[in-house]
Amino acid sequence: MDQRVTLITFGVADVARARAFYERIGWKASSESNPQVVFFQAGSTVFGLFAQDMLSEESGVAGTPRPGGVSLACNMRSREEVDATLAEVEAAGATITRPASETAWGGYVGYFTDPDGHPWEVTYAPMLKLDAAGFLKMPA
Amino acid sequence: MDQRVTLITFGVADVARARAFYERIGWKASSESNPQVVFFQAGSTVFGLFAQDMLSEESGVAGTPRPGGVSLACNMRSREEVDATLAEVEAAGATITRPASETAWGGYVGYFTDPDGHPWEVTYAPMLKLDAAGFLKMPA
Repeated sequence: MDQRVTLITFGVADVARARAFYERIGWKASSESNPQVVFFQAGSTVFGLFAQDMLSEESGVAGTPRPGGVSLACNMRSREEVDATLAEVEAAGATITRPASETAWGGYVGYFTDPDGHPWEVTYAPMLKLDAAGFLKMPA
Repeated sequence: MDQRVTLITFGVADVARARAFYERIGWKASSESNPQVVFFQAGSTVFGLFAQDMLSEESGVAGTPRPGGVSLACNMRSREEVDATLAEVEAAGATITRPASETAWGGYVGYFTDPDGHPWEVTYAPMLKLDAAGFLKMPA
């Protein structure tokens, strides 16, 4: 299988509510979005929102999912950017599940969950370089 | 918050087992990987594997997660590529949770889960164009 991720889909209870949260933190939805599915371009990958019950039906994955098994990260350029972003997302309705703190490996990390409980890591990892667009490139 | 996803982390029960699965389907881990965490470059985003108990502790998200709330997709260039990929991942130990079939919107979609139950969509969506590297670009 090609080493690609073309789309990350979050199952959500209410697509309009989830979209409103991501718009409050400044994200711009693609014009291809509709009331059933919302797309946000995020570098080479698209981030999407889709009703959880429809995602479960389409994927054939049995049982009620509980968030926390997958985490997305947004790497920042400084500790100050981590603090400012956590304040911004909290004001937009996120829950801070881990206030930002120094880590044993020299980073500075906080976590929040979105209105559906999906976790996001907001992190400053000084040993990882971000490109001009803000993305990570790992050595081969 | 910047409209970026720098890292997608799957919480897994056994990092070595999960890494072996992704290597069997042809993915190449970054040399920055170690027994605790594995990184695979996937376009502008990095896909990672990390022990679920450590992810839960770091993220502060309470409760035992159950997969199915987040789905990743790999968009293919044809129906034949979807079939070939599903056969490849099944041979590598994936579970096919939805055999490939035509959809109401004109696509051709199958799903599998990896050894930790994380779902992946393998999909051909003829209305979505992939760039040369195989990634989706949605209209603004």
